[in-house]
Amino acid sequence: MATYSFLDDYSEGAHPDILRALTASNYVQQAPYGADSHCEDAANRIKAHLGEGFQGAIHFVASGTMANIVSISSCLRPHEAVIAVASGHIVMREAGAIEATGHKLITVPAVDGKLTTEAIEGALASNAHFPHMTKPRLIYLSNAPATGTIYTLAELRDISALAKRRGLILFLDGARLGAALASPKNDASLADIASLVDIFWIGGTKVGALLGEAIVVCNPALSEDFAFHLKQRGGMLAKGRLLGIQFQELFGANDLFSSLARHANAMAAKLATGIVSAGHGLAADTETNQVFPILPNAVVSALQPHFAFYVWGKADDDHAVIRLVASWATEERQVDAFLSRLA
Amino acid sequence: MATYSFLDDYSEGAHPDILRALTASNYVQQAPYGADSHCEDAANRIKAHLGEGFQGAIHFVASGTMANIVSISSCLRPHEAVIAVASGHIVMREAGAIEATGHKLITVPAVDGKLTTEAIEGALASNAHFPHMTKPRLIYLSNAPATGTIYTLAELRDISALAKRRGLILFLDGARLGAALASPKNDASLADIASLVDIFWIGGTKVGALLGEAIVVCNPALSEDFAFHLKQRGGMLAKGRLLGIQFQELFGANDLFSSLARHANAMAAKLATGIVSAGHGLAADTETNQVFPILPNAVVSALQPHFAFYVWGKADDDHAVIRLVASWATEERQVDAFLSRLA
Amino acid sequence: MATYSFLDDYSEGAHPDILRALTASNYVQQAPYGADSHCEDAANRIKAHLGEGFQGAIHFVASGTMANIVSISSCLRPHEAVIAVASGHIVMREAGAIEATGHKLITVPAVDGKLTTEAIEGALASNAHFPHMTKPRLIYLSNAPATGTIYTLAELRDISALAKRRGLILFLDGARLGAALASPKNDASLADIASLVDIFWIGGTKVGALLGEAIVVCNPALSEDFAFHLKQRGGMLAKGRLLGIQFQELFGANDLFSSLARHANAMAAKLATGIVSAGHGLAADTETNQVFPILPNAVVSALQPHFAFYVWGKADDDHAVIRLVASWATEERQVDAFLSRLA
Amino acid sequence: MATYSFLDDYSEGAHPDILRALTASNYVQQAPYGADSHCEDAANRIKAHLGEGFQGAIHFVASGTMANIVSISSCLRPHEAVIAVASGHIVMREAGAIEATGHKLITVPAVDGKLTTEAIEGALASNAHFPHMTKPRLIYLSNAPATGTIYTLAELRDISALAKRRGLILFLDGARLGAALASPKNDASLADIASLVDIFWIGGTKVGALLGEAIVVCNPALSEDFAFHLKQRGGMLAKGRLLGIQFQELFGANDLFSSLARHANAMAAKLATGIVSAGHGLAADTETNQVFPILPNAVVSALQPHFAFYVWGKADDDHAVIRLVASWATEERQVDAFLSRLA
Repeated sequence: MATYSFLDDYSEGAHPDILRALTASNYVQQAPYGADSHCEDAANRIKAHLGEGFQGAIHFVASGTMANIVSISSCLRPHEAVIAVASGHIVMREAGAIEATGHKLITVPAVDGKLTTEAIEGALASNAHFPHMTKPRLIYLSNAPATGTIYTLAELRDISALAKRRGLILFLDGARLGAALASPKNDASLADIASLVDIFWIGGTKVGALLGEAIVVCNPALSEDFAFHLKQRGGMLAKGRLLGIQFQELFGANDLFSSLARHANAMAAKLATGIVSAGHGLAADTETNQVFPILPNAVVSALQPHFAFYVWGKADDDHAVIRLVASWATEERQVDAFLSRLA
Repeated sequence: MATYSFLDDYSEGAHPDILRALTASNYVQQAPYGADSHCEDAANRIKAHLGEGFQGAIHFVASGTMANIVSISSCLRPHEAVIAVASGHIVMREAGAIEATGHKLITVPAVDGKLTTEAIEGALASNAHFPHMTKPRLIYLSNAPATGTIYTLAELRDISALAKRRGLILFLDGARLGAALASPKNDASLADIASLVDIFWIGGTKVGALLGEAIVVCNPALSEDFAFHLKQRGGMLAKGRLLGIQFQELFGANDLFSSLARHANAMAAKLATGIVSAGHGLAADTETNQVFPILPNAVVSALQPHFAFYVWGKADDDHAVIRLVASWATEERQVDAFLSRLA
Repeated sequence: MATYSFLDDYSEGAHPDILRALTASNYVQQAPYGADSHCEDAANRIKAHLGEGFQGAIHFVASGTMANIVSISSCLRPHEAVIAVASGHIVMREAGAIEATGHKLITVPAVDGKLTTEAIEGALASNAHFPHMTKPRLIYLSNAPATGTIYTLAELRDISALAKRRGLILFLDGARLGAALASPKNDASLADIASLVDIFWIGGTKVGALLGEAIVVCNPALSEDFAFHLKQRGGMLAKGRLLGIQFQELFGANDLFSSLARHANAMAAKLATGIVSAGHGLAADTETNQVFPILPNAVVSALQPHFAFYVWGKADDDHAVIRLVASWATEERQVDAFLSRLA
Repeated sequence: MATYSFLDDYSEGAHPDILRALTASNYVQQAPYGADSHCEDAANRIKAHLGEGFQGAIHFVASGTMANIVSISSCLRPHEAVIAVASGHIVMREAGAIEATGHKLITVPAVDGKLTTEAIEGALASNAHFPHMTKPRLIYLSNAPATGTIYTLAELRDISALAKRRGLILFLDGARLGAALASPKNDASLADIASLVDIFWIGGTKVGALLGEAIVVCNPALSEDFAFHLKQRGGMLAKGRLLGIQFQELFGANDLFSSLARHANAMAAKLATGIVSAGHGLAADTETNQVFPILPNAVVSALQPHFAFYVWGKADDDHAVIRLVASWATEERQVDAFLSRLA
């Protein structure tokens, strides 16, 4: 019998609505490179969430790393650097993609996986010996960050105010923005985010799309010539419709973006609750779709033939921290199976 | 009434077999980042065409520009340059993507859209004032090139022999390799190409896939650490299965890669024959899926409300060259409609 | 007996005034990295030539390639390209230095070694398929260009007007600006150039300095954060005084910048006149310090044991074009010796 | 009355032997771009110190940042990263020069300013999630590091052994290599270093040259095409003689490289001894030419009108750490003046 995977939130294909929409529109001829009617409509659907004042533009790309590459490199002059937490995705999981565009990452310690105003102030203070140091210019944060926590609206406001005060560009990586917004702890809306940051992206891949992320350029000054960067970095698909159609569905009648994220978070919450009920601890609060249980090594070994998950680290000699990720496609009966086997 | 588009070969979605395969496999959990069973099987299906001696590796990426970026930048040291025809796709249509990775393009004139050994020799001779000039190191050619002609096996052999003699890497951009191999004039097989070049890619996007290109690294020396480059440039999809599934279908039981390309070429041939029969000339032979008719300006204007196509250039004061592209999805009745309106 | 070299204008060390100034100031402690009093004074001396309206800044670097790298890469966003003649120094003699900073060079044919407004207009017209092509953004020209001709004031005005009309940055490489300004054909002043271009540099190396070029940033918008680029590219010397002292001398009481250039041009003119008197032709007019005689092959062979020079190309089966370069240090008796041996 | 500067070791010009040698050789014509007889002879003089087995090559460049740029970027493929201490010069003082060539810096904590094998092992262990992380490939260390300590031969051997075991390139930044080798604590020779590292450079600027650093490529595999990189990065001087002549003198009859470094170290030692005798502490041992006294704030204020130095940091509310740098040109009477004013 096969193991069931809690490894990540991209183990399955796409929500069936998306596959149906691809099929339904398949033979309609469309303009290429994102100039199709699907991308236009998808952008309008997203804009409907961004508040009346939104003056920016929306572009779709195939991958999160591409979204980060294009968003960051299009904003910066060669001597400008990025401030990020040391555990940030661009720091630790993108094979040096940002440095490959020529920019330094200035790393600071995270608090609960998150960037703080104190850390940003510290980075500015210790990177001010100009011109011998790069010029800190862009703040990178991801919501939800890798630890599964989320930023509160107050935290985002503070960082945004600091960015404006210090002339910094604020950029938000939204690979798991759906999960963050769907968190019971969340008090920020897409419109809040659009009003607070200069540029961000909304992840589709981890919330039920085959692929695709929507870059939202909020600050019009950063919009100029944006399409060149998409093309130059290899991020512009000939059949841009593929991305537009998916975001039409995610932000369509069934509101998949929210409902699929809620499902993932709910499955994670059920896992967390059950694990705690079974007498085990958690290494971090379960605010989104990731759970970090602390389990005896023997329990871990007993679970592994039946469920796939990452062993995240060692808690003590007898216990390990594992990571369980729930997704839009996680089956509740598999959650139950996990908990019953644990018990 | 809507116009019918002969603008390009990526106006529609995907062959229905591909959509069916995506749906059928949708809920099977797979490993991410190209380590899934679909990519593995697709690679094996392609390898079956590459000859017994093939020792290389196959990687899938989302776009042609990405395929060129990764293939070229992974091969070269910073001071090494690319030789390409001045009309080459990397020269004229990728927004400086290769230069953005730090490499100079040395351009030479094309003959029938193609690179010649004479032109390569000329580039080597006029770029030898070392170290004040970059070192020519990689030959870029595309088959079919932008003009719709194709390389003969003899031409490929000559260029390959020259590359080996001069220590150059030979790279083939196969955005329209399907159309080239399906041309009645073609005498080269995939196995021939794999034995003659160091690295090439097989385009899926222009032959009925939603997206996707298969990079074939023939020379094992170029394979080392290849995956890093995919990741660093943003070319690695979390759901790599999306690419694997499509190439399984293209190289599957129905041999879509060949049959769809043959259809496109046949539609182009029918257009060309009909246009010539109607008394008009062609600016270039129709060897693949592109037709370049020379039409009176008045005829062009009369066609435009009904058919979309590019006006490629001016032939004389009264005539224009237009470009018609047929695709895997081109409907024969639209070809007939075009010809009948022309007549 | 040693051969005398007419190979280039950097075969000797420095004008003795420069060596004396280095010695005289040697033990005075100075601030590092260009913040010394010599650089300040040298910049002021240069500014005195740039017209009352000059609002820009001056920076000193060690080499011409560095001056080009910093000047160009500090101005451009990643998708922006440079227009240059195909024979331009950055195209043919700097080992891909500009592409290594990520930017495409769009090359056009030269007329008398020079860029024309027609060529620029042509480059703009054929590089407008956005965003698939890079955006032409900076015009590169060098005065004097590699052929030893010079730009007239009218030519510079026309190019400048075109640049302003089309929103382009105008950059002038002045490796041999001294020779150009000292040409009998010249009608442009440093102040004219400063008013017409956005950024240019004044070469010191080829007019009697040990090393050093002065970058003049005329357009204040390009000045922001300029020092970061100098530092990042390795172009900022700890002992910036070395550059400042030399430009103090070049633009000092003895006006070495002009007088040494005039000497070089005069020696070239004497060579040219003598060669023509001896019955030989010239492949190009001698407007600066380079002479391109057309000589019988036998004469070339007879001269080679006594004088070093480049054989520039073949004129016909019996004749070659050679290049003779005169410099600030060229001895008149060696010019006479060359001419007498020729006769 | 002017203040006397202990700010750095590049406040004065050059040792008079160097100025004399420049003058003496000034009118001898030389080949350009480092192909002159001075560079050849200087390289041979350096090679005489490198041991019989030395099979590499030596190149001269104008600045330390340039030496680092060329040395590192010529060695690495795009996905490869550098391991360095967080306080390293390439990390904190070169304006992102290495990242600008596309490479990530993986930073680790220093111990006494130095990189340790433990830290390297740690960096390898935590940067192994391939291909999502860059591949650690080059170890950067500087001797003497910024703190004025030095590496022992045993430490260098251990790091070298680790590099070989793990397939890493070992690179040593020698901006203050003279001071390190002249330290009473030093037990490593140039030949030791050449046998242990793959590539290093010998700083001239901080030991009495006007400018200039000698890159020693020890590993022949890294030598191929090295000159292209020098040219491409703007690091090749037309009058390469300027660099060659200075290294002829540094490694000439008067052995300036050693004797000037010894003078600088001796002046620093005298400062340190005197400061301790006066009852003050030192924040770090004085192993080379830098002294880090801990002084009462009032004393710092009293010294500042007479001597220039950096206030390095705060020791406690009443005390500051200052940095005093002695150089080849530091006058003993100024050392005495400092100490007497301190007393």
